[in-house]
Amino acid sequence: MTTRVFYLNQQIEGIPNLALGEPSSTFRLATEKLQPLKDGQVLVKALYFSNDPLQFAWINKASNENAGLRRIFPGEPMGALGLAQVVDSKADQYRPGDIVNGSFDWAEYSIVSAQAITGKIPQSSLPLTTALSTTGLTGLTAYFGIKEHVKEGDTVVVSAASGATGLVAVQVAKALGCRVVGITGSDEKCKFVQGLGADGCVNYNDPEFIGKLKQALGEKGTCNVFFDAVGGEILDKVITLMAKNGLVLVVGFISGAKNPAKMAVRNWPIVIASRLTIKGFNMSDYVHRAPEAVVDLTKWSLEGKIRNDPSVLNVVDLSEESKFADIPKAWGLLFDENKKPGKVLTKLADPK
Amino acid sequence: MTTRVFYLNQQIEGIPNLALGEPSSTFRLATEKLQPLKDGQVLVKALYFSNDPLQFAWINKASNENAGLRRIFPGEPMGALGLAQVVDSKADQYRPGDIVNGSFDWAEYSIVSAQAITGKIPQSSLPLTTALSTTGLTGLTAYFGIKEHVKEGDTVVVSAASGATGLVAVQVAKALGCRVVGITGSDEKCKFVQGLGADGCVNYNDPEFIGKLKQALGEKGTCNVFFDAVGGEILDKVITLMAKNGLVLVVGFISGAKNPAKMAVRNWPIVIASRLTIKGFNMSDYVHRAPEAVVDLTKWSLEGKIRNDPSVLNVVDLSEESKFADIPKAWGLLFDENKKPGKVLTKLADPK
Repeated sequence: MTTRVFYLNQQIEGIPNLALGEPSSTFRLATEKLQPLKDGQVLVKALYFSNDPLQFAWINKASNENAGLRRIFPGEPMGALGLAQVVDSKADQYRPGDIVNGSFDWAEYSIVSAQAITGKIPQSSLPLTTALSTTGLTGLTAYFGIKEHVKEGDTVVVSAASGATGLVAVQVAKALGCRVVGITGSDEKCKFVQGLGADGCVNYNDPEFIGKLKQALGEKGTCNVFFDAVGGEILDKVITLMAKNGLVLVVGFISGAKNPAKMAVRNWPIVIASRLTIKGFNMSDYVHRAPEAVVDLTKWSLEGKIRNDPSVLNVVDLSEESKFADIPKAWGLLFDENKKPGKVLTKLADPK
Repeated sequence: MTTRVFYLNQQIEGIPNLALGEPSSTFRLATEKLQPLKDGQVLVKALYFSNDPLQFAWINKASNENAGLRRIFPGEPMGALGLAQVVDSKADQYRPGDIVNGSFDWAEYSIVSAQAITGKIPQSSLPLTTALSTTGLTGLTAYFGIKEHVKEGDTVVVSAASGATGLVAVQVAKALGCRVVGITGSDEKCKFVQGLGADGCVNYNDPEFIGKLKQALGEKGTCNVFFDAVGGEILDKVITLMAKNGLVLVVGFISGAKNPAKMAVRNWPIVIASRLTIKGFNMSDYVHRAPEAVVDLTKWSLEGKIRNDPSVLNVVDLSEESKFADIPKAWGLLFDENKKPGKVLTKLADPK
């Protein structure tokens, strides 16, 4: 039995090269024979891959060795969080037919140790993909980032509000009783964010961005918490509208992924003057508390406070055999400002 | 009775123009008659002015209105913290001859309300200037910044380590049992910092700055707390050597005072990867706890753990009458990278 699988060809230092077969290609596609299963291993077939900015850090040459993040080196298979179906199993916990989520290779079939599997997806009235969106890495980042740092009545600004993490952050903050204002890169995306229940949304490409944001923040014209997945110029502007002792949660840096020069934060004096706290936030510190998040997020989903329908997903369907090679391009959508709103998922197959 | 006094001519947007008599001059010198004292007022003669980066924020056009910082507008006298001697008093608490510290005008004589006076300087074996250095604004910033955020055994990096705040921060961190590494702009200043007891000091102009800093940090090559008065490029480099969950205390932004473009912090991904907290710190939040700081700092001074001798001061002596007009230039030393180490004080007169 063979499978197609993507390997990391070289670590990235700036923009990844998603084309295949070039000397500077980031990934390399191979076809290879699957080895026989060993004890404790499971053979799975990929159903959906989650596309996450975190993968950028896994393969980034400059990633900090001390930070305890997963790293992938050239010659190793490219990894992703995803949903898969068990084909064969030598691990007691999993049986053929089980649908599981966890850490898999960018491959049609992978052999994984049972430890790489997070768990079986339970039968639920929520769509299967909820496990990769609302209750996946990005949803849980939104949940713990917001839940641990806001209180009822706070005004919360969320950047990249139409993206996978932002769209959940907006809804969690609303569920907790906050005033919520989103930031996105187009009026159309702002409409989407207001459709999620945000009290306001501002397009950062609007020449009157900061004035409109101030207005959207209400009477005080300030916010208490800024949930920021962007960094750089937008952060630089938003901190001028933060209340004294305000908190910036740094959950991403998409503005610098393409162009590191855009990471400049010049309004540093305001950090002192307004006694701001800027805090790097990473969901991996909260993995042990995932069950409580899943309980809340499922409850809010069933109450209609959080949406899990296809409108909050951006699914790239590669289930036709000939399209498998487009996996890197689907992942590259993360860096495309003009992509449609929602969590970016790559579909490989439906469960059987 | 007349006095010379400096007024703010215009708020600053970039570098102050310290020359007098030009259309773009930041300050204006006037000679004027002193009004008769009213009840609750005190007439004081200036002895020493403290020169503080905070004054930059008072007269900066871009200072944030919401931040609760003092602001000085064009046509108002320029202010400073300082030491003065009471000449005449209509306030019960103060008598002629008392030496007091507090908030005064840049003037030979000022009329101040008793509320603007912090208190009388007690008789002590420590030099009078200690009240403007170790137990003044900069010393207390160092004390609370370090004391509230480090524990014994931490590795602490202090930038601008030969400056007024940094030199106290280094000594307080040592007194509390930390490993301390300073950063300055010359090998000579580094010698001064090591003379204060720092375990190491690195010149940021050294082409091997970051490698030498890593080495100075000891076996782990990381620090837990970065006490940063500089911001920008140096901050950007130092965060690459911070331990997971490390804290950056933002106490100043001298790198951007001259050139806002230098405030760029590009290594934002590291804030997430290492879960750093970056926290704006301002002593004014701790004013009510000043007495406990004065007790500790005095005790450590008497034990020889903190130095208050002339070697830690950078006194500009303007006590000759003809030199009074040089007050702005003395203040401008704050922005001179080649100034000698120590707290910058302007001397106007000795007490009588």
